[in-house]
Amino acid sequence: MSLNTFGHLFRVTTWGESHGPALGATIDGCPPGIAVSEADLQVWLDKRKPGQSKHTTQRKEPDAVEILSGTFEGRTTGTPIQLMIRNTDQRSKDYGDIAEKFRPGHADITYWQKYGIRDYRGGGRSSARETAARVAAGGVARAALSTIAPDVTVTGYMTAMGPLDIDRARFDWEEIGRNDFWCPDPVAAEEFAAHLDWLRKDDHNSVGAIIECVARGVPAGLGAPVYGKLDTDLAAAMMSINAVKGVEIGEGMEAARLTGRDNADEISMGPDGPVYSSNHAGGILGGISTGQDVVVRFAVKPTSSILSERRTITKSGEETTLITKGRHDPCVGIRAVPVAEAMMACVILDHLLLDRGQTGGARGPIG
Amino acid sequence: MSLNTFGHLFRVTTWGESHGPALGATIDGCPPGIAVSEADLQVWLDKRKPGQSKHTTQRKEPDAVEILSGTFEGRTTGTPIQLMIRNTDQRSKDYGDIAEKFRPGHADITYWQKYGIRDYRGGGRSSARETAARVAAGGVARAALSTIAPDVTVTGYMTAMGPLDIDRARFDWEEIGRNDFWCPDPVAAEEFAAHLDWLRKDDHNSVGAIIECVARGVPAGLGAPVYGKLDTDLAAAMMSINAVKGVEIGEGMEAARLTGRDNADEISMGPDGPVYSSNHAGGILGGISTGQDVVVRFAVKPTSSILSERRTITKSGEETTLITKGRHDPCVGIRAVPVAEAMMACVILDHLLLDRGQTGGARGPIG
Amino acid sequence: MSLNTFGHLFRVTTWGESHGPALGATIDGCPPGIAVSEADLQVWLDKRKPGQSKHTTQRKEPDAVEILSGTFEGRTTGTPIQLMIRNTDQRSKDYGDIAEKFRPGHADITYWQKYGIRDYRGGGRSSARETAARVAAGGVARAALSTIAPDVTVTGYMTAMGPLDIDRARFDWEEIGRNDFWCPDPVAAEEFAAHLDWLRKDDHNSVGAIIECVARGVPAGLGAPVYGKLDTDLAAAMMSINAVKGVEIGEGMEAARLTGRDNADEISMGPDGPVYSSNHAGGILGGISTGQDVVVRFAVKPTSSILSERRTITKSGEETTLITKGRHDPCVGIRAVPVAEAMMACVILDHLLLDRGQTGGARGPIG
Amino acid sequence: MSLNTFGHLFRVTTWGESHGPALGATIDGCPPGIAVSEADLQVWLDKRKPGQSKHTTQRKEPDAVEILSGTFEGRTTGTPIQLMIRNTDQRSKDYGDIAEKFRPGHADITYWQKYGIRDYRGGGRSSARETAARVAAGGVARAALSTIAPDVTVTGYMTAMGPLDIDRARFDWEEIGRNDFWCPDPVAAEEFAAHLDWLRKDDHNSVGAIIECVARGVPAGLGAPVYGKLDTDLAAAMMSINAVKGVEIGEGMEAARLTGRDNADEISMGPDGPVYSSNHAGGILGGISTGQDVVVRFAVKPTSSILSERRTITKSGEETTLITKGRHDPCVGIRAVPVAEAMMACVILDHLLLDRGQTGGARGPIG
Repeated sequence: MSLNTFGHLFRVTTWGESHGPALGATIDGCPPGIAVSEADLQVWLDKRKPGQSKHTTQRKEPDAVEILSGTFEGRTTGTPIQLMIRNTDQRSKDYGDIAEKFRPGHADITYWQKYGIRDYRGGGRSSARETAARVAAGGVARAALSTIAPDVTVTGYMTAMGPLDIDRARFDWEEIGRNDFWCPDPVAAEEFAAHLDWLRKDDHNSVGAIIECVARGVPAGLGAPVYGKLDTDLAAAMMSINAVKGVEIGEGMEAARLTGRDNADEISMGPDGPVYSSNHAGGILGGISTGQDVVVRFAVKPTSSILSERRTITKSGEETTLITKGRHDPCVGIRAVPVAEAMMACVILDHLLLDRGQTGGARGPIG
Repeated sequence: MSLNTFGHLFRVTTWGESHGPALGATIDGCPPGIAVSEADLQVWLDKRKPGQSKHTTQRKEPDAVEILSGTFEGRTTGTPIQLMIRNTDQRSKDYGDIAEKFRPGHADITYWQKYGIRDYRGGGRSSARETAARVAAGGVARAALSTIAPDVTVTGYMTAMGPLDIDRARFDWEEIGRNDFWCPDPVAAEEFAAHLDWLRKDDHNSVGAIIECVARGVPAGLGAPVYGKLDTDLAAAMMSINAVKGVEIGEGMEAARLTGRDNADEISMGPDGPVYSSNHAGGILGGISTGQDVVVRFAVKPTSSILSERRTITKSGEETTLITKGRHDPCVGIRAVPVAEAMMACVILDHLLLDRGQTGGARGPIG
Repeated sequence: MSLNTFGHLFRVTTWGESHGPALGATIDGCPPGIAVSEADLQVWLDKRKPGQSKHTTQRKEPDAVEILSGTFEGRTTGTPIQLMIRNTDQRSKDYGDIAEKFRPGHADITYWQKYGIRDYRGGGRSSARETAARVAAGGVARAALSTIAPDVTVTGYMTAMGPLDIDRARFDWEEIGRNDFWCPDPVAAEEFAAHLDWLRKDDHNSVGAIIECVARGVPAGLGAPVYGKLDTDLAAAMMSINAVKGVEIGEGMEAARLTGRDNADEISMGPDGPVYSSNHAGGILGGISTGQDVVVRFAVKPTSSILSERRTITKSGEETTLITKGRHDPCVGIRAVPVAEAMMACVILDHLLLDRGQTGGARGPIG
Repeated sequence: MSLNTFGHLFRVTTWGESHGPALGATIDGCPPGIAVSEADLQVWLDKRKPGQSKHTTQRKEPDAVEILSGTFEGRTTGTPIQLMIRNTDQRSKDYGDIAEKFRPGHADITYWQKYGIRDYRGGGRSSARETAARVAAGGVARAALSTIAPDVTVTGYMTAMGPLDIDRARFDWEEIGRNDFWCPDPVAAEEFAAHLDWLRKDDHNSVGAIIECVARGVPAGLGAPVYGKLDTDLAAAMMSINAVKGVEIGEGMEAARLTGRDNADEISMGPDGPVYSSNHAGGILGGISTGQDVVVRFAVKPTSSILSERRTITKSGEETTLITKGRHDPCVGIRAVPVAEAMMACVILDHLLLDRGQTGGARGPIG
């Protein structure tokens, strides 16, 4: 079952609402002996933390994570790891408006329609705050990867915002951490900043974005055909993030436009094994990693909470309008970057463990 | 676990290789009392069956399905349903070439790298023949839906082939079944035909496609946040189909290009409940169905098996070239249509059962 | 997967170690709209709480439970429920002895052999303190049952301690809550008390017990053949409790001694449906509830921590001896009673939800 | 989910009814490269096959197993293995009587009450014929064990029938295969035979039995606390077998009668690691294997189908009587032996894979 759990062997269950006392992640199946501390996890939470630039929500949350179980003397014990983050900035305010009105583009109406009860204070479980728990869990996954598969790195970045795209010729891995957008193209980063300023201040609007996430150093052979394929699990992981509407592996939707001659990556033999002429496949063939970079890309829709008036209805079925005030991200794609990295780290680790369990990590020799 | 199983309560495990004695699907969790016969399932298998037009592989397989368990006097009993399809057209031929050489763009190399053993006769488990089992299972899901939620329909169709797109102004539901491409635009269908003829005969090439699949009549409230969301499960279902490289819900990747004002569907009150001004969301908000059409779209890459010479390596690591002869689909997207419908039917049914189990199908009243 | 999770739809993951900062339970799949408060759960935790009589460990833990998520205004929302219990009585003491020596009969040695790392402070994850989290989760299950299936009651009691058995002729449901042993026979309760006093004070020893747990009011039709049978899940639930070595349904091991004529419960027709001449089956036939009382029984081994010297080895492989001082239950069976009730409540609720999901709760009519 | 599936990584789904066209097992998660043939599996099926002595049902079924998928050139490929057994001895007879009347002690009534539909021809899914599929799957598990953990052996035997017990002083492993009862005590085997003859012919009755199953050579460290403990999974596996009413690990229910001094196995150091003074624990501490023999024991109730008249009701609620004619095992415990062995082999293999996945098989050193 996977209502609030993902993973096969490295299983993460997140819990908590945006305005409850706390939220967190319960991790079951983490290998023992992994060095991990609260400080290690905090690094990743700080990356996602709101209020770090003028381009994200001004909600101030320290997002300090506590490890409540599963480690002893700084190492994992193989037992469940409980990570808790206290909610601290639950401003006392009047929620009356959104308690009765459904915010268009939000899950207010569907949670109500499904459950017949809804924590209306800021989205409850459907709030993007839930992703803080994912980032904490991703920190544990990264710690485990650094022990079990130290060559693996996972890096996310923004490649488009609204109509603006990066120029791949200017792609610079080092640049990613230097701007407010996790953008590998410094010129595009400046364009993103100007565009977002205008949208927020002048247009009272928001905008979507495209995020790409790459895992390098992934060994060939990960993925569990045919329903636990590596790309299947990555697609599910990304689509489960709030506001994501599309997921691509490698060539993605553009694969539809290509011919077989253009698309299939040719193979030659390198000093360390197979080498590919290109990576249209995004590092995955038949659901199993090839040893190339694993590339996943996804689109985040624009925030539905904007300062413009929108038509909607109330719980009692009356038509009305709504302006969503408050502290909202004008481009939720920015803070989706560390979330995507966390999800990808979890998926890669999970498949390493799963492969180890099922095949013993045995590999067919080439050459 | 989900190596070869999908679904939460309606669980489908497919099994079988392209050149083994048989393949099939084991369904666990189908509700009892559903009327279903081999003839009912055969309808859907015939839709996917190869060799029906010059545009698909000329492999001749009757794909006759047998129900080996789980029904009694024409109705499901609530016990596991075993569906078996015998492989009959396993031509005796020399597989020596592809036994040693890895076909570029295929899973030959990754299956070898993962498992250290591989049924090289036509792809084995990674062959698209596996999808026949999905279609059979989808037939059972449709039968259950027609009893439990008779308003639900699931329809797939092709919206693009290589550079060619349908014109939405000519969209005609009735047209879908009339051409070889499950294409709702009769003009585009003719263009697809001409293009594919040229690719196959003159260019010795293949091409990708975009498929859209729509579920109408889905009640509001289906989906299990936050990791068993309806869109998450649909994304996983589609990405698990051979050759799929991208999945979109509603606006899809284009959501990145929109502003919040353009994207969020406004809500008004209709005679039967909430009505939306548009369906950018694809019928899903926060992972839960809204009651609108549920719209999923995906890209299928071009067949990697083409009559052109490609560079590759052998198991012993020698560089070589390969021309993939044999009976291959120049556009695998065509036969992906009934597969996608089957997967979508299974996902919708599964979430109906899951929702019934968890919430008892209770709904919050509006108005 | 079920390393630290049990249940199909009502899924409980417990976490935490005996000497860490906290322990708890993450519940996923609880239906929405169930009234439940911390005070409701505390009732059950208090029943299990140590130090309530001279017959249980003198460790003083308030075992106060906090609900961190999943409820809103006193009702469940259908989202994950996080229950946390802080550990407060972690006496600062010298664990050096058991850090190096394996306590015979405990999991010290196997945790070390499996994980290569072990929280040696009082058993860590293998401590019976973990069961506090189960009791809290069971409180939520009881709250859900009282809404969904209000006729269901779950009651556990002790039927034997060491050589002493209750006399079924004196069985009194009201007596169970009146003595320190949850014993339905007041005479046996006094014998238990005297025997345990002697064992603890004079013999420096401990003793096993038999617990029976009965669910009344369970509707016919619960259970998911053939591997999720109601008895299968009950057996797993009870065997997962610390120190349990045997589980019985209805007649249990004695069924081996009976003939078919003696064992099979005959059926007649009562005013409200089928009536059985006896309940050798323990309320379950073919893994499905019959509507009779569901009866499960299990044996708890004697505490291995005793004040007598025992032979053992150290981590470095040296032979040595050990006397386990500290605060230990001389009969862990006593505090196993509320734990068993909690597990049974969870299993019954889970099967109610599962049955509702799969069959829609449809039933074949009789008469 | 586990309606008809068991196992964490080595997952077995059985399917099929007693009087349908076939039954079988779908195995997902078997490691690749394991040598296994139909002949290898047939050995175990022949052990369970009916009609081999006068003491079992005279139903004649060859129970010939076919491998439909998952192997190539005699070895497993890591893809799902489909095992099918055709039903051949479905005698054309009048089922009218049991179609309307519920057989006491059978699942006829509960299947009807749960599903509202029932294959009444001989028990359908609740028939012990389902266990043939388990035995076939167990054959695959044994093949995998013989490659991955060749020291592991799994042996079942009968220790009691009705009032008769074996004498442990006469226990002889070699004797087990020499008599019709898988009995390790030749004297007891003769007593069993005489008793069963009398019961069947003169008393028109049936009888229960106790089966013990031992896995030797199991390495220390298997088991996934706290809900996937090795003993928990063994208890579930055995309780899921038809007619089982009680399960014990090691000392079992008798543990309740012991003191801590008598029960806890003392540890000393042997040449190859820890050595225990006794095995009250049954080879499992805290849910994890100790390296000692793993010992599980269970009680099988007497067959409810006997030639004596029993009171029951019809579907329409009328009271009536029933004599169950036909070909029935007077002691189903006999044929439960190979079934239990199969289940135990599956559980041990599953935990080997699970441990390999989660901990990498790392172990804490002793000495």
